[in-house]
Amino acid sequence: MSYSKLSKTKLFKGIEENDIERLLCGCSLVQKSFEKDEIIAFEGDECTSIGIILEGMVDIKKVSTSGKEYTITTLLPGDTFGEAVIFSSSNFFPATVVAKSNTTILFIPKDTIINLSKKSEKFLHNFLNILSDRILLLNSKLKESTLITLRQKICNFLLEEFKKQKSLKIKLSLSKQELAEKFNVQRPSLSRELIKMREEGLIDFGGKEIWIKNLERIEEYLYENA
Amino acid sequence: MSYSKLSKTKLFKGIEENDIERLLCGCSLVQKSFEKDEIIAFEGDECTSIGIILEGMVDIKKVSTSGKEYTITTLLPGDTFGEAVIFSSSNFFPATVVAKSNTTILFIPKDTIINLSKKSEKFLHNFLNILSDRILLLNSKLKESTLITLRQKICNFLLEEFKKQKSLKIKLSLSKQELAEKFNVQRPSLSRELIKMREEGLIDFGGKEIWIKNLERIEEYLYENA
Repeated sequence: MSYSKLSKTKLFKGIEENDIERLLCGCSLVQKSFEKDEIIAFEGDECTSIGIILEGMVDIKKVSTSGKEYTITTLLPGDTFGEAVIFSSSNFFPATVVAKSNTTILFIPKDTIINLSKKSEKFLHNFLNILSDRILLLNSKLKESTLITLRQKICNFLLEEFKKQKSLKIKLSLSKQELAEKFNVQRPSLSRELIKMREEGLIDFGGKEIWIKNLERIEEYLYENA
Repeated sequence: MSYSKLSKTKLFKGIEENDIERLLCGCSLVQKSFEKDEIIAFEGDECTSIGIILEGMVDIKKVSTSGKEYTITTLLPGDTFGEAVIFSSSNFFPATVVAKSNTTILFIPKDTIINLSKKSEKFLHNFLNILSDRILLLNSKLKESTLITLRQKICNFLLEEFKKQKSLKIKLSLSKQELAEKFNVQRPSLSRELIKMREEGLIDFGGKEIWIKNLERIEEYLYENA
């Protein structure tokens, strides 16, 4: 067992290698190797373990009934799969898990997860942290996805930065081109909208800064369409 | 302390009243009453406890800098708040929590959550289940929100029902009117799109049923635009 690899994963973060060794001693665990393109779990299979990728890469795929494959994401060493499904009310894999290269996976069964959570506060904290951070990320993605107009996307961005920077003078860490890509529009469209917002007295800008001139109306663009 | 009320909450589900009493004995807990319109937590406050609503109702609100309020959701007795934030890397309330009526809240501090998780597998399981189910719900909402066209929404619905009903003949539990509301379109628009899909050989329909005629192409509508 490679405890040094495990100590670098999010689940075992902050736990010393010899503490991991002691924790896992006597626990039921399965380490298994897969060849490139081998199926690790099928969509719809019951999820009874969390998988930690020790070596290699893993694709999460949707496979249509006619056999066409669509890759949703690729996981790297240290990444895990199954952690959000295993304790859910519908504990089935929502997609197929395939070895993208020769891969070694450590499977931690549900009972062992419960045991480790009881034995190590750090492990429990890490697991809860992984799930909670996933919820915050999905919430923020969902919020972004409901922003329809470019105006709303800009207002949302300005308010988030205002909260972070605690100043109405927003320093931009992204270029105009990068901002346009973030909002999924062409650069000239972004420039036109910023100019319109300046004409309406909402903002002013120059160099790598945008000044919020009317915070109240910028907030209204977001909340009133929520 | 009302153990019978606690035993009906998601966090203590499946734990007998006297077991809850034994579990909580010696634990640090705070029960507090709030009057209507009293602020329970401000947006941006550090979240150090999970709140369980024992009596009354609670609004989760966004408040603009000018003081305008926008209610995001209302929580009822048995509901909790803070549970997705407390173990996250950014453990601050993302919105303001306000008593909608006279309200009694039981606050369970972070240390007590850790202790209860160690002492009771059922409690740990319930907490992990709440977080995991939230992730699945958000994932499915996010998936729905990326469906832009009515055609995509219909195809997504048909595929989900196909998986549930395990049949190409989909029995509708919703009326056409309810389906139209689910897809956020007018009823005639839904009817027109269904007729178009029938003309293209994708589906057929009649009464309270839709038959999938070309599963492969229906899948392609979803995955190829993912």
